[in-house]
Amino acid sequence: MTDTLTPAASPAVLHDRTQRSFASDNYSGVHPEVLAAVAAANGGHQVAYGDDQYTARLLEVMEHHFGEGISIYPVFNGTGANVLSLQSMLPRWGAVICPQTAHINVDENAAPERVGGIKLLTVPTPDGKLTPELIDREAWGWGDQHRAQPLAVSITQTTELGTLYTVAEIKAIADHCHARGMRLHMDGARLANAAAALGQPLRAFTRDAGVDILSFGGTKNGLMFGECVVVLDQEASTGLEYLRKLNMQLASKMRFVSAQLIALLDGDLWLRSATQANAMAARLTEGVRGIPGVTLTQETTANAVFAILPPGAADRIRESFRFYDWDQATGEVRWMCSFDTTEEDVDAFVDAIRREASA
Amino acid sequence: MTDTLTPAASPAVLHDRTQRSFASDNYSGVHPEVLAAVAAANGGHQVAYGDDQYTARLLEVMEHHFGEGISIYPVFNGTGANVLSLQSMLPRWGAVICPQTAHINVDENAAPERVGGIKLLTVPTPDGKLTPELIDREAWGWGDQHRAQPLAVSITQTTELGTLYTVAEIKAIADHCHARGMRLHMDGARLANAAAALGQPLRAFTRDAGVDILSFGGTKNGLMFGECVVVLDQEASTGLEYLRKLNMQLASKMRFVSAQLIALLDGDLWLRSATQANAMAARLTEGVRGIPGVTLTQETTANAVFAILPPGAADRIRESFRFYDWDQATGEVRWMCSFDTTEEDVDAFVDAIRREASA
Amino acid sequence: MTDTLTPAASPAVLHDRTQRSFASDNYSGVHPEVLAAVAAANGGHQVAYGDDQYTARLLEVMEHHFGEGISIYPVFNGTGANVLSLQSMLPRWGAVICPQTAHINVDENAAPERVGGIKLLTVPTPDGKLTPELIDREAWGWGDQHRAQPLAVSITQTTELGTLYTVAEIKAIADHCHARGMRLHMDGARLANAAAALGQPLRAFTRDAGVDILSFGGTKNGLMFGECVVVLDQEASTGLEYLRKLNMQLASKMRFVSAQLIALLDGDLWLRSATQANAMAARLTEGVRGIPGVTLTQETTANAVFAILPPGAADRIRESFRFYDWDQATGEVRWMCSFDTTEEDVDAFVDAIRREASA
Amino acid sequence: MTDTLTPAASPAVLHDRTQRSFASDNYSGVHPEVLAAVAAANGGHQVAYGDDQYTARLLEVMEHHFGEGISIYPVFNGTGANVLSLQSMLPRWGAVICPQTAHINVDENAAPERVGGIKLLTVPTPDGKLTPELIDREAWGWGDQHRAQPLAVSITQTTELGTLYTVAEIKAIADHCHARGMRLHMDGARLANAAAALGQPLRAFTRDAGVDILSFGGTKNGLMFGECVVVLDQEASTGLEYLRKLNMQLASKMRFVSAQLIALLDGDLWLRSATQANAMAARLTEGVRGIPGVTLTQETTANAVFAILPPGAADRIRESFRFYDWDQATGEVRWMCSFDTTEEDVDAFVDAIRREASA
Repeated sequence: MTDTLTPAASPAVLHDRTQRSFASDNYSGVHPEVLAAVAAANGGHQVAYGDDQYTARLLEVMEHHFGEGISIYPVFNGTGANVLSLQSMLPRWGAVICPQTAHINVDENAAPERVGGIKLLTVPTPDGKLTPELIDREAWGWGDQHRAQPLAVSITQTTELGTLYTVAEIKAIADHCHARGMRLHMDGARLANAAAALGQPLRAFTRDAGVDILSFGGTKNGLMFGECVVVLDQEASTGLEYLRKLNMQLASKMRFVSAQLIALLDGDLWLRSATQANAMAARLTEGVRGIPGVTLTQETTANAVFAILPPGAADRIRESFRFYDWDQATGEVRWMCSFDTTEEDVDAFVDAIRREASA
Repeated sequence: MTDTLTPAASPAVLHDRTQRSFASDNYSGVHPEVLAAVAAANGGHQVAYGDDQYTARLLEVMEHHFGEGISIYPVFNGTGANVLSLQSMLPRWGAVICPQTAHINVDENAAPERVGGIKLLTVPTPDGKLTPELIDREAWGWGDQHRAQPLAVSITQTTELGTLYTVAEIKAIADHCHARGMRLHMDGARLANAAAALGQPLRAFTRDAGVDILSFGGTKNGLMFGECVVVLDQEASTGLEYLRKLNMQLASKMRFVSAQLIALLDGDLWLRSATQANAMAARLTEGVRGIPGVTLTQETTANAVFAILPPGAADRIRESFRFYDWDQATGEVRWMCSFDTTEEDVDAFVDAIRREASA
Repeated sequence: MTDTLTPAASPAVLHDRTQRSFASDNYSGVHPEVLAAVAAANGGHQVAYGDDQYTARLLEVMEHHFGEGISIYPVFNGTGANVLSLQSMLPRWGAVICPQTAHINVDENAAPERVGGIKLLTVPTPDGKLTPELIDREAWGWGDQHRAQPLAVSITQTTELGTLYTVAEIKAIADHCHARGMRLHMDGARLANAAAALGQPLRAFTRDAGVDILSFGGTKNGLMFGECVVVLDQEASTGLEYLRKLNMQLASKMRFVSAQLIALLDGDLWLRSATQANAMAARLTEGVRGIPGVTLTQETTANAVFAILPPGAADRIRESFRFYDWDQATGEVRWMCSFDTTEEDVDAFVDAIRREASA
Repeated sequence: MTDTLTPAASPAVLHDRTQRSFASDNYSGVHPEVLAAVAAANGGHQVAYGDDQYTARLLEVMEHHFGEGISIYPVFNGTGANVLSLQSMLPRWGAVICPQTAHINVDENAAPERVGGIKLLTVPTPDGKLTPELIDREAWGWGDQHRAQPLAVSITQTTELGTLYTVAEIKAIADHCHARGMRLHMDGARLANAAAALGQPLRAFTRDAGVDILSFGGTKNGLMFGECVVVLDQEASTGLEYLRKLNMQLASKMRFVSAQLIALLDGDLWLRSATQANAMAARLTEGVRGIPGVTLTQETTANAVFAILPPGAADRIRESFRFYDWDQATGEVRWMCSFDTTEEDVDAFVDAIRREASA
């Protein structure tokens, strides 16, 4: 036994390390600096369940970004961060207003409802973004015992449709919520991409804009695993320490979650990686603009591109590059760029699109 | 961006890599061979959520140990593995018979009840082990709508008290369960330690003994994180793919869970590590035997040692080495050895115990 | 002690027995024949929790209406009947497609989600009615672990908007569901009103049309309390005996639930009462048709009338007759007739509406 | 339609009104004065869901017994009252300490766990009664995220074993709880029997003794259905209005629950009925005392008698009188007396016991 990193002679490499896709930013792996941080945090013993030196340091790093008076709860994954955040803000009779396209509504197999006991009051939107007016479609009925009480709003930044809230838009939503006794949660699975797109520090469009609690995303920005609930207003949330354990999101060897988040945030890796992913999406958007038969369906603001392809083209392109169908009825597809997407990747992908769109 | 592991110049090392304790096997870090496997699995893109090449390979590796016809569900942590296993075997009105000292009963902040909707029917035991007779204290009332229906039994191997079921004991329990229409779950957070202690292959005291579903533990045996639900009898379990997601245990970059488990199980790392931990516990037991004032309270069969110390001694010893109080009323303490515990660690610890026990 | 009904000298009458409203069919009391049946079922001892002679007889009465091979579960209230019905048809990962206006979605404080663990996939409709096309907006994603699995559809007959499904419409929905592996639940809180409106036996538009499970409503048709889950296809449902107890819907003195349902259904009281309520709604509709400023917003098919009133009129009318605002944004109101609504009630109400609409 | 009670010519009487048993106090029917009160509350319309004149009056009646500053929530049944009470006192991570024999633990098919999300920390007792010492077996671990937090204690008065807490015993428990930050719930399914046995007003051993919240039982003391959550300390409980609805315990025609409770409590019916039941249990106890082979196993303090019979005797006696086996292993049986049990019933039962015990 030794405390130093001594890799076995030949650990298994089972996959093609040169192959990348446009399917999802979680198809990518771990940024090398993150992996190095994990190795650095290894060896010796550390107190389990969060009372370790890396988690203590992570709080300082987070305070650097979000200011003092926050509290943090590293967790395993984004669904966990979302459900914990919402549950910690709501009584058992609480409901959350969110866009119909929200990840919490469509991609978490009802974890908010089933595990969190939370009702989602969903609102259709054209672009995945709420507004005060859209919120008001469901913000009513307080005091009526028959109605699940709308006590929180959840927005995603950047959204599941690749769109972006401005700082002013978030402030308007937060003010609107608070004036009605509602709290504001932000699903920040792609928060760094939003910061890069806005050219703003993380704090400007979260805490300073009135967000009460944040699911800070790491996995989609180059971590192996690991997200973090960040409580920005202590009055908004209670019991997260217990909720994290009972919801099965408490990592025993938490130092390795925290060390990854430190690698991301103690320095500019978070921003470098997000900027790269966004830039590649912009390059992709420019590349396909004007290709006959290709229609961009959402504004490209961060690392996602949405488009409609001619019938049959998607499947032909997918013989070379994986990506998701978004709406099979309309033929809409989603292309995601990641921290490790390269210009060569994009250019080859654009070539394939051009070739197959007109085939 | 590059696919090769290029550590940053100076990732943060915040802790003392030479310090180890006897607090818990999850105070230890990651075995170097496991970390090397993670690095090997990095780079390029892999399909998320389990459809990757490492998870496919893991199934083959698991089949090597447990035979064909199994199915596997890598998850984040042990509580997740337990709740998923039990929930997948039970209808909404099901109950699980377990020892009062079971981890699912005392250490999971009621995740089985709150998240799983499962009633635990607990039985006091002297040593953390169930027997057919103990099971029968709660195995009754089938068909009575008022009673949570006892349809599963959960045992832990090795137990939370460091004790060990023999193959014959497990077989007797499994037969007893099956004759009454109940299924058998094994919490194998320390399954490798049991295999090392029994000198038996993993299959002998699980599938071949009649266990229906298994929480296979990795974290306490040198993984960074990662456990695996192993369904040994397909008739016993349903819906785990959905349950894993809705219970927030689905890792997006699952290749890194699977790669760790492969590193453990594709070869003998699992056994080497467990054998080391067990040997150190045996050495510790021998070392303290006969020290005046020190009473061993459970048989040491694997990597845990339980003892009662003279009043005050525990706190004095803890100035040098961390460990847990087990029962403050009696002064009982728990000492855990880990894959990275060394002979020098044990000998220094024994010295401290000898010194403080008679102080 | 005596077994005969000997009222105390002066039990408290605290309310005005002559006052009726148009607020809800559950503002009304108990039909005298139902109360007489309760009194008849009183005295002596009967086995609790459903093993009594009244519940046994109720099964025969229900079989008279719905045919053999059904099973019945009397419960306390409609929310209970709905949640039990749906839960009994769904695995833990199931979802239910329903109209956005469904009672289960808007009036049960998320009991289906919170207590039942069920995801509702809601569809906007113009008239509270689903169609195969509307169902298909959410009927997709089977096998995708991320998506709550749409395995049941719930329709309400008559709907929360007072509209009515024809037998052919229900058959088309049932066929559509079954072809996709989904089950069909009917919330029949006002099933008798539907039968009266359709001029069809209960079985024609439930079991014979392909409905799998039914919440049979009693309270809104003159019972004191009491609804009944009726399983029409035994393959569609499991565990209701246990689900009823664990969901706190098991009446100990069940004979009094069953005796009420017998009073309703063993004879034509159910139809007489519903016919009266429907006739009064038709009279009300005719009465207000043509009053300047009053716009009927839904077709009156059963015992509910929906209309938009001139600004201010609703509150002035409410000084004499209670009723509900339905949509404060548009000024839409709901008027419900009950088994005990009289022609004089309706005529006086129409007078008030006429007077205040033009005030 | 008419507002007066006009029974149908011949409502169905399906059972033998002269037959009574010793099985359970919920085998009995409705006290005639209660039924008369239901009839008096009938006719006309009343606001649904609790905003009626009977529920308003019930609050005054309850205040007469328990003092001002309480709040009340009529519900359908005892399991509902218990789960609501406990849930309203606990955060999502709360646990309740209770005797192993508590109704909430053994007779509610895990409704507290499954619907309430509550962990029960159970303690074995000889007589169904907790003490401060017994509470302390589970009253520990506050602040430990792994442990379901013991924040409430639940006691049953009279207990499920027919035993009785004295006022002093309850005070000692309440003080013990409050000193540790725990709240005290009383399951009062048989509260009136306790009052009759203690010769104390209801308030003396509930609110004045420090009980925070009460499940007030009506069904077992002559109601058709209906219990009431009574919040005695407003600081102890929150959200019951919402919890009642979402847990499916909100009666639409609540006037009929409240009218029954008024009939019981506005006057001395509650005490007369309980006194009769208790007296019959005392008569039964005296009657069987000294019969060879009959051993009384618990002190008879209220309306329950526990005894062990010679092998085979129970089944022979049951040919004439129904009653429950309590512990099949020991041959222990339970005999319950009800408000309508007569001296003749008891004497005939004693004769049967004497005859069969020595057969």
